[in-house]
Amino acid sequence: MIISPAFPVEPWTVRERGLNLETLAQTESVFALSNGHIGLRGNLDEGEPCGLPGTYLNSVFEYRPLPYAEAGYGYPESGQTVVNVTNGKLIRLLVDDEPFEVRYGTLHEHERVLDLRAGTLTRRAHWTAPSGCTVRVTSERLVSFTQRAVAAIRYEVEAVDAPVGIVAQSELIANEAPPELSRDPRAAAVLESPLVVEENSAAQDCAVMIHRTRESGLRVAAAMRHDVDGPDGTDLELGGSGDVSRLTVVTRLRPGRRLRIVKLLAYGWSASRSRPAMHDQVMAALAAAHATGWDGLAREQRAFLDRFWSGADVEIDGDPQVQQAVRFALFHVLQAGARTERRPIPAKGLTGPGYDGHIFWDTESFVLPVLTYTHPRAAADALSWRRTTLPQAEDRAARLGLDGAAFPWRTIHGEECSGYWPAGTAAFHINADIAVAVERYVDATEDVDFERDVGLPLLAGTARLWRSLGHLDAHGRFRIDGVTGPDEYSALADNNVYTNLMAQRNLRAAADAADRHPDRARRLRVTGDEVASWREAADAVVVPYDDRLGVHPQSEGFTRHAMFDFDATEPDQYPLMLHYPYFQLYRKQVVKQADLVLALVVCGDAFTFDQKVRDFAYYEALTVRDSSLSAAVQSVVAAEIGRLDLAYAYLREAALMDLDDLEKNTRDGVHIASLAGAWMALVTGLGGMRAADGRLRFDPRLPDGITRLAFRLCYRGRRLQVVITGDSTTYRLLEGEPLPVTHHGEQFLVGDQPTTLPTPTVTAPDCRIRQPRGREPRRRS
Amino acid sequence: MIISPAFPVEPWTVRERGLNLETLAQTESVFALSNGHIGLRGNLDEGEPCGLPGTYLNSVFEYRPLPYAEAGYGYPESGQTVVNVTNGKLIRLLVDDEPFEVRYGTLHEHERVLDLRAGTLTRRAHWTAPSGCTVRVTSERLVSFTQRAVAAIRYEVEAVDAPVGIVAQSELIANEAPPELSRDPRAAAVLESPLVVEENSAAQDCAVMIHRTRESGLRVAAAMRHDVDGPDGTDLELGGSGDVSRLTVVTRLRPGRRLRIVKLLAYGWSASRSRPAMHDQVMAALAAAHATGWDGLAREQRAFLDRFWSGADVEIDGDPQVQQAVRFALFHVLQAGARTERRPIPAKGLTGPGYDGHIFWDTESFVLPVLTYTHPRAAADALSWRRTTLPQAEDRAARLGLDGAAFPWRTIHGEECSGYWPAGTAAFHINADIAVAVERYVDATEDVDFERDVGLPLLAGTARLWRSLGHLDAHGRFRIDGVTGPDEYSALADNNVYTNLMAQRNLRAAADAADRHPDRARRLRVTGDEVASWREAADAVVVPYDDRLGVHPQSEGFTRHAMFDFDATEPDQYPLMLHYPYFQLYRKQVVKQADLVLALVVCGDAFTFDQKVRDFAYYEALTVRDSSLSAAVQSVVAAEIGRLDLAYAYLREAALMDLDDLEKNTRDGVHIASLAGAWMALVTGLGGMRAADGRLRFDPRLPDGITRLAFRLCYRGRRLQVVITGDSTTYRLLEGEPLPVTHHGEQFLVGDQPTTLPTPTVTAPDCRIRQPRGREPRRRS
Repeated sequence: MIISPAFPVEPWTVRERGLNLETLAQTESVFALSNGHIGLRGNLDEGEPCGLPGTYLNSVFEYRPLPYAEAGYGYPESGQTVVNVTNGKLIRLLVDDEPFEVRYGTLHEHERVLDLRAGTLTRRAHWTAPSGCTVRVTSERLVSFTQRAVAAIRYEVEAVDAPVGIVAQSELIANEAPPELSRDPRAAAVLESPLVVEENSAAQDCAVMIHRTRESGLRVAAAMRHDVDGPDGTDLELGGSGDVSRLTVVTRLRPGRRLRIVKLLAYGWSASRSRPAMHDQVMAALAAAHATGWDGLAREQRAFLDRFWSGADVEIDGDPQVQQAVRFALFHVLQAGARTERRPIPAKGLTGPGYDGHIFWDTESFVLPVLTYTHPRAAADALSWRRTTLPQAEDRAARLGLDGAAFPWRTIHGEECSGYWPAGTAAFHINADIAVAVERYVDATEDVDFERDVGLPLLAGTARLWRSLGHLDAHGRFRIDGVTGPDEYSALADNNVYTNLMAQRNLRAAADAADRHPDRARRLRVTGDEVASWREAADAVVVPYDDRLGVHPQSEGFTRHAMFDFDATEPDQYPLMLHYPYFQLYRKQVVKQADLVLALVVCGDAFTFDQKVRDFAYYEALTVRDSSLSAAVQSVVAAEIGRLDLAYAYLREAALMDLDDLEKNTRDGVHIASLAGAWMALVTGLGGMRAADGRLRFDPRLPDGITRLAFRLCYRGRRLQVVITGDSTTYRLLEGEPLPVTHHGEQFLVGDQPTTLPTPTVTAPDCRIRQPRGREPRRRS
Repeated sequence: MIISPAFPVEPWTVRERGLNLETLAQTESVFALSNGHIGLRGNLDEGEPCGLPGTYLNSVFEYRPLPYAEAGYGYPESGQTVVNVTNGKLIRLLVDDEPFEVRYGTLHEHERVLDLRAGTLTRRAHWTAPSGCTVRVTSERLVSFTQRAVAAIRYEVEAVDAPVGIVAQSELIANEAPPELSRDPRAAAVLESPLVVEENSAAQDCAVMIHRTRESGLRVAAAMRHDVDGPDGTDLELGGSGDVSRLTVVTRLRPGRRLRIVKLLAYGWSASRSRPAMHDQVMAALAAAHATGWDGLAREQRAFLDRFWSGADVEIDGDPQVQQAVRFALFHVLQAGARTERRPIPAKGLTGPGYDGHIFWDTESFVLPVLTYTHPRAAADALSWRRTTLPQAEDRAARLGLDGAAFPWRTIHGEECSGYWPAGTAAFHINADIAVAVERYVDATEDVDFERDVGLPLLAGTARLWRSLGHLDAHGRFRIDGVTGPDEYSALADNNVYTNLMAQRNLRAAADAADRHPDRARRLRVTGDEVASWREAADAVVVPYDDRLGVHPQSEGFTRHAMFDFDATEPDQYPLMLHYPYFQLYRKQVVKQADLVLALVVCGDAFTFDQKVRDFAYYEALTVRDSSLSAAVQSVVAAEIGRLDLAYAYLREAALMDLDDLEKNTRDGVHIASLAGAWMALVTGLGGMRAADGRLRFDPRLPDGITRLAFRLCYRGRRLQVVITGDSTTYRLLEGEPLPVTHHGEQFLVGDQPTTLPTPTVTAPDCRIRQPRGREPRRRS
């Protein structure tokens, strides 16, 4: 069996030549298909071997107890974990009484290809059974962007050199046996048999299975329908019981002849709809898919993606690996968000069970910036989901003794699911992250209805939270004490710079939005006094500064702490959290992920250029990047201060996170936020793009190694292309009205004609920037 | 049935008239007997009704898993919880076929008396069965101070007005059904059937049961032997199986006649000794007890206590309630520590399962000060136990990435059992608390062997810990960041004043002891450079001060935090930890228990008198006393600064903690440290006693309401009595060589003749001192 090291570098595809069983779980994540509603891991058609079986429906979760050695008031008692729902991918094959299984017989050839323009995963296998029969198996799979409830598989088997008896079993199967437990806290809690069967029926060509989750009481319906094209005498039998539904196809193929099965799948779930209603819902989806047919679904899929790429594509000359990676990244970001429709975008999308399928702050802070400028509707959807969870957030705030809304650190259904409050509940910045995502989306779309109906309730709820969370001290300064910033190697500190500056933006954005929508504000019982108190607090926010060192401490006192002893830390002691107690990490100067440096990006106006240089240099020496949420941010700041080599190295790290499995946990799902970060590093970093008040600003610059960078953006109804080379930058309006743009400080209007301006040369700052020993980013070899 | 409200005020006894079933669990704790090795809760002889069944052997524990919703590196995976071992107290009675049960029939009279000079618990019941037969039941119980493995019960039943058939069943019973679960985190984890039977044998008059704990593998042996005195024809039968061993006594009593049973119990346990060895061990203990007999045991008990009281008694004129309470307190402190013999003194002694039977810092900080000056041998024993756990503490330090020894926040066997590290592992001050207890004991006894063999290893291990825990900052100041001080409503702060000053004492004490014992220091690999580095760190310790407010912040930044809103807090929201998240408590100015104020006592030399006044006033307004470890400390400082009314109120609170069940959790065991605190409030507070460098210092003063306070102390082989009245103070040497003493700054020698000096009048400080709304201490009514 051929085992290839990684994926060949191709511009629009991710291809695996051969089949590496060692990395099977990783490739299942890389090859996962999703439309944001349904997610299918790239499991082999025949089910085994398997890294992690996975079929997900956005927001289908089960409760699980959260145990505590020592409990405390306000600790969540119940967690939520993603459920592996009914698997419809399964098509088993018996070849002359031998199961088709890549570990047996001889696998002459195996290939899987994820096509980023077609939106399909294809697979080809050329296999000789132990008995000597040879077949070619081909399958193609899609999860439809256009028909949200539908996935489809086209499966073919061909006899090669001798007549062969074939039995194909196409199944729906629920409660697949879970894999063995992992001890990594970032993996999911695994549930055994979470689904209780309610219906398993087959009529005409369709089979329907309906289950209900045991504790959360969610009804999950899955249905399948087949078009089978085989030789005369091909025999079909549909039936099932319990957790399995099965179409059995029996045939005999002469050499060169094929059996083709098109399997249409429909999924639905509901917390409230009845079993018959769910039955009809999936049957209706199947009927629509059947009317469209495989070819129609594939055509729609490509058309949807063509439209997406026309507003979102990023082209890179000089580094084909990053070219491939950034398209892979954008594809997965799109998959995660495209059709969530008021459901969340989890940290792993629907590609794996990592982090229990929870959504965190990275959605608003990393994923939505990309979607806002490439597929804005998805950003609106994700924020609308947050809006639906306001009641839970308000309950949580009340429980914590706070006003307004306290959004959960991690959740599926809106309730706080963090079982470790210093790095969960205390990380209040998530509330400002949501607010800033609202502000960003409204600026990018001028979506007034959204601002009024979704935005203002979110902004007001979070502003109220901040106002009650902080306090004005004896000097009239607004302090926010005892909270945790983005860096998870610190906790419960006073006046975290990122948190305070984000709270300031949050308070001001809420005040501005309330002023713009007075009627709606009144309905939210926002008074003029309250708005004034938000502005007062925002104006008085404390931003600590260390005069001695000339840098901003991440939080008050941070720069007085002992340095972590990086020189005594061996490579195998990373990530540090698996080798050091929190106690030691929290009290020392060591940074897991960009925190102050993230403030330099998101609240860049609060810092001078010189401060950015000094702050970046200071935190570079402390940042170990044990989180995937760091490299992209460091890349953006490195680009801004003129360290383009470093910006490039971090860009590559963010982009290659999953294709190269840099954190060794892609098995549990791809890192949607890191992938989104690759776009951020390119567009916000090298492109220097910032947006505010209806204006786009660019400070383009290119590192050695990238000769041309072109990207497309959606902004206020326009589609814009920016093409950067070492000499010049060209701005081209692809769609919409002329748009005011700033290029390296120069303002102009991009209209019908492209505008080309020189790309200035950037000088690197005159200071030494280095990383902790052994944590330097990989350079392109 | 008569239900009395509390306990009548008597100088040497705690008496319950009637039987209050509502407070049964509380009185079981109050009436618990122990010698520090064996503990018997005051359960009724017949076993039911019962608040909490309880029979304990010091250090017999079982492991239990510590679960975490989100685990982290270095979290203890296994906890330890006290085991309710074989119950030998049980004597059931059948009276003409009716079980003697206080809830049935008519209980004419019931009384229990704890005699603090006799060291016995007596009980008298006068009861008519539903059938009409009347009996008097009398029992007397002791846990021997002189025969460590032995407890004894003298049980009598008398027919009153008609002949009555009697069956008495005297039992050993293991694996008693646990009571229903409490949700209070201060209660214990309850184990079901922790004991596995290994032997249940009866031969001649003796029955032996040997069990083994399931996971911890400790072998527990219990044995009983009876002397039965009844009318002719009294029939005895001894036998048993499984978890029960039983002597059945059948007799018939004419009116006025009695059945008397003396039940001798022997207990032993071992992690290593064999079953036959354990069998022989308890049989030997029984043989000795039998040779002594009930009367002999009772005589020895009283003699032991006479000796104790002669060196420890405290007399109070003017407040008989406090008089009773302080003797009750001293009795329980003695019971907890008398015969531990290299076993720990748990927070509840052996009076109940509270806090899982764990030992905390309160032993060294509250209990040992009392034992050091009243029964010093017990203090040496407790510290010797710490010494035996050095290997576990060194392992823990290594696991945490620190040098030396990190003693556990809570444990039975020496391993860290805290499942919430911010209030457990991070509370490093326990290490200095141990060191200071060593320093205190050595000063009080001049026990050079102890200092060399027990003290120096403890001092050096903890000094090493501090040296690696702190760091010298850019200004050469020694900082200790990210730790938790005594106040459990704050956590993970920098430079906690108490912690830093205690670390300073620890480092200096270790350096001094190493200089005094160079050979032993060498064996511990303590070098001259290391000692120098301890002194360097001690001299450079940071003690933060708030210039604006003129007070010491409890930790760096504390006084900048928001004030807790006491005015919005209702009485039923205390203790706050059961009604507010830690998050909100940690970030605000609210203090659970004396922290900075404890530093004013233990490290008093580091503060000027004016600072003490201002600091005390500042923290009084923030301290809610949700811990029983606070009132006594506040009392001492209030006395020192001249607020004698307040000192008196806090003294009463500490003293009455369990008799009045002030925290509503005496059911789980008495608060040994609070009881010890009552002595501290009297002797250290009103007596103004401080000891250092072989000299005792007193600043006596009395509040209105106490007309005379007399106490006795052991110090460097002397026994000293101090008698304070409003006018004068008399120092009297009861035993030993003349001793240098300071009275309100005046030095003199106490020799053969008593010295009487005037008690100066104290003026209260000119500043307003108030407590949070509703948290003022109760005043004597």
